[in-house]
Amino acid sequence: MTLSLDEAAETLAAQPFSTLVGARLTAFTDGAATLTIPIRPELLQQHGFVHGGVLSYAADNALTFAAGSVLGPSIVTSGFTITYLRPAMGTALRAEATAVSSGRRQALCRCEIYADTENGPVLCAAAQGTASVIDLGRTTTSS
Amino acid sequence: MTLSLDEAAETLAAQPFSTLVGARLTAFTDGAATLTIPIRPELLQQHGFVHGGVLSYAADNALTFAAGSVLGPSIVTSGFTITYLRPAMGTALRAEATAVSSGRRQALCRCEIYADTENGPVLCAAAQGTASVIDLGRTTTSS
Amino acid sequence: MTLSLDEAAETLAAQPFSTLVGARLTAFTDGAATLTIPIRPELLQQHGFVHGGVLSYAADNALTFAAGSVLGPSIVTSGFTITYLRPAMGTALRAEATAVSSGRRQALCRCEIYADTENGPVLCAAAQGTASVIDLGRTTTSS
Amino acid sequence: MTLSLDEAAETLAAQPFSTLVGARLTAFTDGAATLTIPIRPELLQQHGFVHGGVLSYAADNALTFAAGSVLGPSIVTSGFTITYLRPAMGTALRAEATAVSSGRRQALCRCEIYADTENGPVLCAAAQGTASVIDLGRTTTSS
Repeated sequence: MTLSLDEAAETLAAQPFSTLVGARLTAFTDGAATLTIPIRPELLQQHGFVHGGVLSYAADNALTFAAGSVLGPSIVTSGFTITYLRPAMGTALRAEATAVSSGRRQALCRCEIYADTENGPVLCAAAQGTASVIDLGRTTTSS
Repeated sequence: MTLSLDEAAETLAAQPFSTLVGARLTAFTDGAATLTIPIRPELLQQHGFVHGGVLSYAADNALTFAAGSVLGPSIVTSGFTITYLRPAMGTALRAEATAVSSGRRQALCRCEIYADTENGPVLCAAAQGTASVIDLGRTTTSS
Repeated sequence: MTLSLDEAAETLAAQPFSTLVGARLTAFTDGAATLTIPIRPELLQQHGFVHGGVLSYAADNALTFAAGSVLGPSIVTSGFTITYLRPAMGTALRAEATAVSSGRRQALCRCEIYADTENGPVLCAAAQGTASVIDLGRTTTSS
Repeated sequence: MTLSLDEAAETLAAQPFSTLVGARLTAFTDGAATLTIPIRPELLQQHGFVHGGVLSYAADNALTFAAGSVLGPSIVTSGFTITYLRPAMGTALRAEATAVSSGRRQALCRCEIYADTENGPVLCAAAQGTASVIDLGRTTTSS
């Protein structure tokens, strides 16, 4: 059930929006995933910093891949919380996500987003979210 | 100090990432803002739905513009929570944000994200977040 | 399957912690629930305001009852986000929760928490959370 | 500016609601705080588990004390997100919070809540939140 880095990278490459953003999967192990996004002009906001929406994309997707590393590929992200800490600028964003807790059907993951700068990495945002296994074959009953 | 729709739309147009995503500001009043994003192939994930990162971008930016409508343009988004409800597909996303509470320095906003489909709008995600006035005259240090 | 106000109030009364806090269910309709908590000295923090933990309890439980009004009684709260807006003081807290979206298995709810004061109600906190139907017929393992 | 464990424990003891819940501060260092809450019948919900509101109280307060360990005592909690993972039962709850990032005015903290059981600790919830320094002497200008 567990995916390899190559298989997970293929999944990322199959996401047109991730290609548009320019995200690459640079680590993928059991319970952790890292997305790296080279910073380029198209990703900025009006003051020259990386747009918050790029950071939230990175959190969403890194959390999802970390969850997928423990739950398998058929998952859906339920939601997440992101806190912005500092403006992001530099050469690349790195979103490092880990699974804090996982059962058979759900994983709770956390993510730190760093901007790689001349002076080293700067923590720019932190997120927490959950993903669940998609239940394709199950009939649900309403209550 | 309140911005007009045209001034706010200029701010959006000055965000390269918003241009990359293709977002347009379709409403902007005192306490509310709507972003509309035509759905196109570049915004999808591997299953043909709009990528969660597009929804989170929409939430981030709609919340920020709604906050800006009451706090003025010099603000920073502190963070937000997004809950995904249903896969998004159709012709366009609409992120409708309103300020639930605002003081002199901070605003709490909420946002609903709809996908416009042949059968009408479908609520796909809901978010809650805060933005604060940037304090330019104060030097902050980070650790 | 829908509960009446009396049945829901019995559920609340069966929660020892809600009795300790002194919460009462003052409204319960299809998609909405209100908890009212008289403010008394035991609920305060060191500065004389209602403790944030009382507000978070109120959010948790009001969200859960609002979800229960649409999903039925066998539910579990997945989590929530609360934003504190102003210190709470006065005669009573009112946590008003509504279901923003509900399917057969999950509901997304929002909640506003007001402090009733001599000068009228003051919005002190806002929350967003989800609850899901408990799946009794399925064995889950946790790791 | 930094508090000792004894000083921080005095602050906790000065919170009537924390006394009502029965919380004790069992660790307090630069950047971390642990609250321990003996589980007793008054803290339960109708199914015999610890009420979610007790866990959210524990998260709120542990996050605040961890923030206070780096920001000093004059702070206010802005809000937090809590995800419930498993029902809590056993002898005691332990809410372990750490400051992930802190500047002069704000700290981002995370918290894990464990239930101590016969079979060892069980992770029951995870939270993330922020606290800010109260700005008593500053005049703010509206924009």
